[in-house]
Amino acid sequence: MSTTTTATTAAATGKPSIITIVGSGMMGSALAFPARENGHTVRLTGTPLDREIIDTCRATGRHPKFTKDFPAGVEYYQIDELEKAMAGADMLICGVSSFGVDWFAEYMLPRIPESLPVLSVTKGLIEDGDGGLVSYPEYWARRAAPRKLRLNAVGGPCTSYELVACDQTVVTFCGDDLETLRWMKSVMQRPYYHIAVSTDIMGVESAVALKNAYAYGVCITIGACERVYGKDSPPHYNSQAGAFGQSMLEMQKLLRLLGSNNDEALATGIGDLYVTVFGGRNRLLGKLLGRGMPLDAALKELEGITLEGNVIVGRIAKVLRAWAAQGRVDLREFPLIAHLGEVLLDNKPAEIPWDAFVTESRR
Amino acid sequence: MSTTTTATTAAATGKPSIITIVGSGMMGSALAFPARENGHTVRLTGTPLDREIIDTCRATGRHPKFTKDFPAGVEYYQIDELEKAMAGADMLICGVSSFGVDWFAEYMLPRIPESLPVLSVTKGLIEDGDGGLVSYPEYWARRAAPRKLRLNAVGGPCTSYELVACDQTVVTFCGDDLETLRWMKSVMQRPYYHIAVSTDIMGVESAVALKNAYAYGVCITIGACERVYGKDSPPHYNSQAGAFGQSMLEMQKLLRLLGSNNDEALATGIGDLYVTVFGGRNRLLGKLLGRGMPLDAALKELEGITLEGNVIVGRIAKVLRAWAAQGRVDLREFPLIAHLGEVLLDNKPAEIPWDAFVTESRR
Repeated sequence: MSTTTTATTAAATGKPSIITIVGSGMMGSALAFPARENGHTVRLTGTPLDREIIDTCRATGRHPKFTKDFPAGVEYYQIDELEKAMAGADMLICGVSSFGVDWFAEYMLPRIPESLPVLSVTKGLIEDGDGGLVSYPEYWARRAAPRKLRLNAVGGPCTSYELVACDQTVVTFCGDDLETLRWMKSVMQRPYYHIAVSTDIMGVESAVALKNAYAYGVCITIGACERVYGKDSPPHYNSQAGAFGQSMLEMQKLLRLLGSNNDEALATGIGDLYVTVFGGRNRLLGKLLGRGMPLDAALKELEGITLEGNVIVGRIAKVLRAWAAQGRVDLREFPLIAHLGEVLLDNKPAEIPWDAFVTESRR
Repeated sequence: MSTTTTATTAAATGKPSIITIVGSGMMGSALAFPARENGHTVRLTGTPLDREIIDTCRATGRHPKFTKDFPAGVEYYQIDELEKAMAGADMLICGVSSFGVDWFAEYMLPRIPESLPVLSVTKGLIEDGDGGLVSYPEYWARRAAPRKLRLNAVGGPCTSYELVACDQTVVTFCGDDLETLRWMKSVMQRPYYHIAVSTDIMGVESAVALKNAYAYGVCITIGACERVYGKDSPPHYNSQAGAFGQSMLEMQKLLRLLGSNNDEALATGIGDLYVTVFGGRNRLLGKLLGRGMPLDAALKELEGITLEGNVIVGRIAKVLRAWAAQGRVDLREFPLIAHLGEVLLDNKPAEIPWDAFVTESRR
């Protein structure tokens, strides 16, 4: 474990920096901890949907969903105070969820100087308008053109509340420029927050988006076992593991299709899949579907929970179907995501296609 | 799900076959279920260490460690009755653990006709006497030379008690000859037991051996969290997931070093790692080490539990150290298994080397 202290870490970056976080959801807010612990100025700024959160943070010094106070000195801003929050900023952290991507594009991108490095926590892929999928940094880069912004992103297995608790956590910062990534890492790393860097934005971002889709596959098997053995039965693992291995295989093939053959990106996604099966909100929907509940009923039961996984399954399944129609891919190579598409797009019952997973492979 | 019935499955293989299982541990015994359910003659035969198990099976129709009776008609043999148990056999299943590998080589190999296909459940890698590692089928092939035996093996995420419970399970049969593998699959597959086949014996066997080593890495993080939050704290996943992703990366590199670049073999090993973290016996030792207990004390606490993982960690760590000394590998590429080697060979305290996991990777 590193023995770096708060003071020396800030010193190592030359001087304390000013970090403006826009979006006070759990993950954006969690990043205030390592940044402030390293001695930086941290300005947590709400989106128009975050007014109550910011009010609460100001009143209590604690995020309403966390069980631990923010480090002393974190500053809180409403969106109307954005100009003040961004004055002199050295880094902007985008903390919006995938449902805030277009708000960020419309409202924030024009306000971000070309010189200001951006680090986004938003995970997902989005249609590129040309039959393919792009990462959010790439989507924003296109929206911001001809201005050239310095867009980076963070991926990897990290639940916000465990980061806040200082659990050992490994993530990857990805972006075009290695020097910028190294600087961001120096600003954010802590003895418990370990940061790899990668210039493979598409690989890392695709991997961590795909895990939201494949987590459903694994969690459906949990529900299917509960259907057989009862909801309070001890957990069973053969079927989870079978779906997990298949998920790795399909994620690897999809990454290659999307232009990445980077082992580190796949490993980041596999770690992220693991944490999402256990710590993510997708687990609930997957279990309900696996127990035999139709999609509509399951979504109704989960009312109020935002499910980014549904969006990504739909986008990937649609693109794969289109590519299959064009002869570019064979859907039989992707039986699990193809089935998840049937469940989430076509309302078919969840029934893992086990026999489609078994292959003949040669040395 | 397949609608195949017992009768038609047996018929599909031409005629019911005779399956002799040698070794009545949990996994060997579990395979009696799919074989017998498919209408085959099944002869479960104990090793010299299994006398009481066979006595119990005969008296009760149930394995002492299972909570479900064997299917009607399974036959039980003591090792002294081996000749009778093997008379007319169409397939021999080797159900010994890795601690029985040499007994199997000495006692069984000379008694196995060259025409009899063998399927082994034994997982592991063993020194080849030349500074490298080989799979058990390869080890036995060398021990049996110049006779040529038909040695195959099964790998993948499968706990015996869940197979017995008919949980959905995906495994891989590997061997040299695709036709033999297909026939074995036809004999053993069930609507819940899904069998891939692969001619990459070294890839599949290495992957499923390596998972016994890497499961310690993941489980140490569980113990480390318990050390911080208390034994009864809710589970934490960031650090498990960080170690899981690193395990995938190192397993992939090791498979390539050992001569396999087969995605399916890696996926089999990743599924197997997942099930081992949750369902395996290695979990206990990993947790104790992670809580800060020295190796000797942890092993004492687990007295009586056989830990195949310790053997494989030791073998891999030793080979990697030797290869590193020869300049063939850079140990910094394998920080997790290198640390596990320090813990299990050198009695160093378990302290996951997180900072060694973060890399700079490029598109």
